[in-house]
Amino acid sequence: MLQASQVLSEEGPLVAEALPGYLPRADREAGDLDAAIRHATQGGKRLRGVLVRHAAATFGLDPELVMPTACAFEMLHAATLVHDDLPCIDDSDLRRGRPSCHAAFGEFTALLAGDALIIGAFEALAVQAETVDAAAAIQVVREFAQFTGATGLIGGEQADIISEDLPPDADLLRYIHINKTAKLICAACRAGAILAGAPADGLQTMTDYGMAVGLLFQVTDDLLDVTGDEAVVGKPVGADDEAGKQTYPGVWGLSGAQEEARRLAAEAAAAAAELPGETEFWTSLPDLVVNRDK
Amino acid sequence: MLQASQVLSEEGPLVAEALPGYLPRADREAGDLDAAIRHATQGGKRLRGVLVRHAAATFGLDPELVMPTACAFEMLHAATLVHDDLPCIDDSDLRRGRPSCHAAFGEFTALLAGDALIIGAFEALAVQAETVDAAAAIQVVREFAQFTGATGLIGGEQADIISEDLPPDADLLRYIHINKTAKLICAACRAGAILAGAPADGLQTMTDYGMAVGLLFQVTDDLLDVTGDEAVVGKPVGADDEAGKQTYPGVWGLSGAQEEARRLAAEAAAAAAELPGETEFWTSLPDLVVNRDK
Repeated sequence: MLQASQVLSEEGPLVAEALPGYLPRADREAGDLDAAIRHATQGGKRLRGVLVRHAAATFGLDPELVMPTACAFEMLHAATLVHDDLPCIDDSDLRRGRPSCHAAFGEFTALLAGDALIIGAFEALAVQAETVDAAAAIQVVREFAQFTGATGLIGGEQADIISEDLPPDADLLRYIHINKTAKLICAACRAGAILAGAPADGLQTMTDYGMAVGLLFQVTDDLLDVTGDEAVVGKPVGADDEAGKQTYPGVWGLSGAQEEARRLAAEAAAAAAELPGETEFWTSLPDLVVNRDK
Repeated sequence: MLQASQVLSEEGPLVAEALPGYLPRADREAGDLDAAIRHATQGGKRLRGVLVRHAAATFGLDPELVMPTACAFEMLHAATLVHDDLPCIDDSDLRRGRPSCHAAFGEFTALLAGDALIIGAFEALAVQAETVDAAAAIQVVREFAQFTGATGLIGGEQADIISEDLPPDADLLRYIHINKTAKLICAACRAGAILAGAPADGLQTMTDYGMAVGLLFQVTDDLLDVTGDEAVVGKPVGADDEAGKQTYPGVWGLSGAQEEARRLAAEAAAAAAELPGETEFWTSLPDLVVNRDK
């Protein structure tokens, strides 16, 4: 296997290239809906899709076979960004350096494009059953829903919004970031492993790894909002603080947040060392996350 | 079997009673999200859930076994109502005679509750695999996504919005109502049949029936908006006309729409007569839909 940076730069584009084939195709009667769906799914590193592929490969399944599931994760992720950007939540006109979906297509179209992407993600998870066992595919559907819905990402998003302007609270911060960010990344690691028929202990290691890297991803995201370069990050810097968000630097201070990032990176590396086969992708990914500039 | 009116009044409450058990449970950190999800899923006749049950029974499967799927249809239906009512679409403060979700809980909570209900619907479809074959369950996930997403309900919703104030257009009207309303009702009939292992010809009959009844449901909905009693219907009457919506009375006139309702009822009855076993529920449902007052 290769360094995570090389893998992401090689395989991210593969996921991006496959994605349009799994997106739902809205009819012309639905006007801009199709264009909005495509707009919303452009850009990004495709980390979640690459994680699905690599988890499958780690447990012996050809990563090309899990492309529908890899694309499902990208669709769900895109959907949550579209809805987060809406005026009633973050009211953000900029996403990945381009107009957000509602800035480009209007509010109701963005709302419905997000809905269509959530539903499209599940359609892709079902298409996965063409190439893997139906029981594994349906298990992924179930977990994906649990990790992304009210008991996961959506619940974390709601907690994130309503905790704005509350005093810094370490427990609440952890709840928000586990649910809003870490669970989707963890679910991507688990999904690839489940589809590959990973044994229970391997799946547990993948879970530990995914949660640690997922939290690490959010800690560095919080740090970039303080220390990042707006032109590189692709969105306004300092927005978390302005919005009164619960963040790692806000709760732990800058050096405390950096220390937490190192701790999570070590936790992920320890889990990675227990995975079967070549583990260089998994062991090098935490450093890449810590050192990213966007 | 029994008359559709009796079945709905007996089985609708069974679906309503089972539904909370399949709703996702948001944590207390997510504030009102859990209450908003529950608020959004109250009320209604539970027609779609009852259709799932009856389609299963028609093809020999105990309807109690398909309750997760029945509840999934109710969740998705509730989610679309929550999002439709939002300020950027219908801006409706009233739903089923009660405050709409955003009127009761605010806009971002309603947006996220709708998202959580869409995702929760798929979770329930996956839970279905505990009691039926995983291949049948995953087929239902796939169809449910196709019938509700950009190629179905969501696409129809977008077409409905953007066609407001356009001149009456029979083809566009049909597109909207097939996608926005008929496909979910048809999918409910198909889902029960698929889970019961219906043969291909039975599934086709169920499809023909579901599309006819689904369109009939929308024609009578349009008619109620013209001729209904606001106190009974539970939402403002005349709203379609005010919003410049494409409607059956708008395209075909009042008597033309009533004629179309009779034609669709006859089409559904013809399909019902080909179904196996006792068909009284199926044959009597079209009349019930035509004669409803809400």
